[in-house]
Amino acid sequence: MAEFDVERKIAFLLELEKLKAVLRKTKPVGLERYENSAEHSWQTALTALVFLEETDLDVLRVLKMLLIHDVVEIDCGDVFVYDAAARAAVAQKEQEAAVRIFGMLPDKLGGELLLLWQEFEAAQTPEARFAKAIDRVNPVLQNLASAGQSWVENGVTRQKVIAMNQQIENASPALWRVLKQQLIEADYLTDE
Amino acid sequence: MAEFDVERKIAFLLELEKLKAVLRKTKPVGLERYENSAEHSWQTALTALVFLEETDLDVLRVLKMLLIHDVVEIDCGDVFVYDAAARAAVAQKEQEAAVRIFGMLPDKLGGELLLLWQEFEAAQTPEARFAKAIDRVNPVLQNLASAGQSWVENGVTRQKVIAMNQQIENASPALWRVLKQQLIEADYLTDE
Repeated sequence: MAEFDVERKIAFLLELEKLKAVLRKTKPVGLERYENSAEHSWQTALTALVFLEETDLDVLRVLKMLLIHDVVEIDCGDVFVYDAAARAAVAQKEQEAAVRIFGMLPDKLGGELLLLWQEFEAAQTPEARFAKAIDRVNPVLQNLASAGQSWVENGVTRQKVIAMNQQIENASPALWRVLKQQLIEADYLTDE
Repeated sequence: MAEFDVERKIAFLLELEKLKAVLRKTKPVGLERYENSAEHSWQTALTALVFLEETDLDVLRVLKMLLIHDVVEIDCGDVFVYDAAARAAVAQKEQEAAVRIFGMLPDKLGGELLLLWQEFEAAQTPEARFAKAIDRVNPVLQNLASAGQSWVENGVTRQKVIAMNQQIENASPALWRVLKQQLIEADYLTDE
């Protein structure tokens, strides 16, 4: 490997450090601080692994997508998934961030990761739809385990929570059945 | 999927939350707090991806190993890699932690992950040796970017740093050449 490629890889890995400073709206269960997007990314990858065994999807492709799905937040921050206007406003900026950040890598590798990130965002392939669904699982589990912390703090209603997370069915229908029942019964959620 | 299996998977995923509270000796570059083992695990998986393209190893196997390699710290905490006595003392306890934590999952999946964790620890297969080497990369990059923060705080000499991280060669000889040169020149490291 050429030394120039080593230097590009090192620069990319140091850039990833910044994702540890990007805070989300949820807190890790049992902790008083907000979760960062790096530790969340780890957990989504492991969550995928746990539910991929029920599918015939390309496991490696899903794991790669989830490992990189949030790196654009280094430039754009974490935008709350229930804030549709802010999500739409940031979409173009996230595309540019993906080009910049994966562009730090040697061309072939950076190009592959950029395509995977775009595939995830487009949510059209079975692997991308599965990965998108998995990305919803941990915030729901975290909220169910802590009296709806991020939902209550941000005034998200039961109907909005159910509508947003319905897609978990795309990863595991059995999991969604269990979660939906708990959401219906959660007494800390307000109704519209 | 049986509902019992869903409940086991949910319990496992909630157990993973605890790794976000396990602190390491290094700090993320640019942050004043110590790094936790969850965000570290994410970064090692992505670091593997960046260097696996130079090899013909089983990519999926390596990624799985790195995603789970630190979960035993939920029971045992992070033991500083330069503290050989403490590392030896904790080894049996880590084996028991792996049996307990992966045992929370449905049998087939939990058994597969337990075998992968044991393969990583044994460091005998090419994939495990590569993964072990990758696990060394980020702490070295972090320290090189922050005047040897964890080495200086813990009195680790240049000779010990080089001896411990020499195995990075197993992941990428070109990377190790670059890093070793920087370690030789680092003026904040003390010599024996």
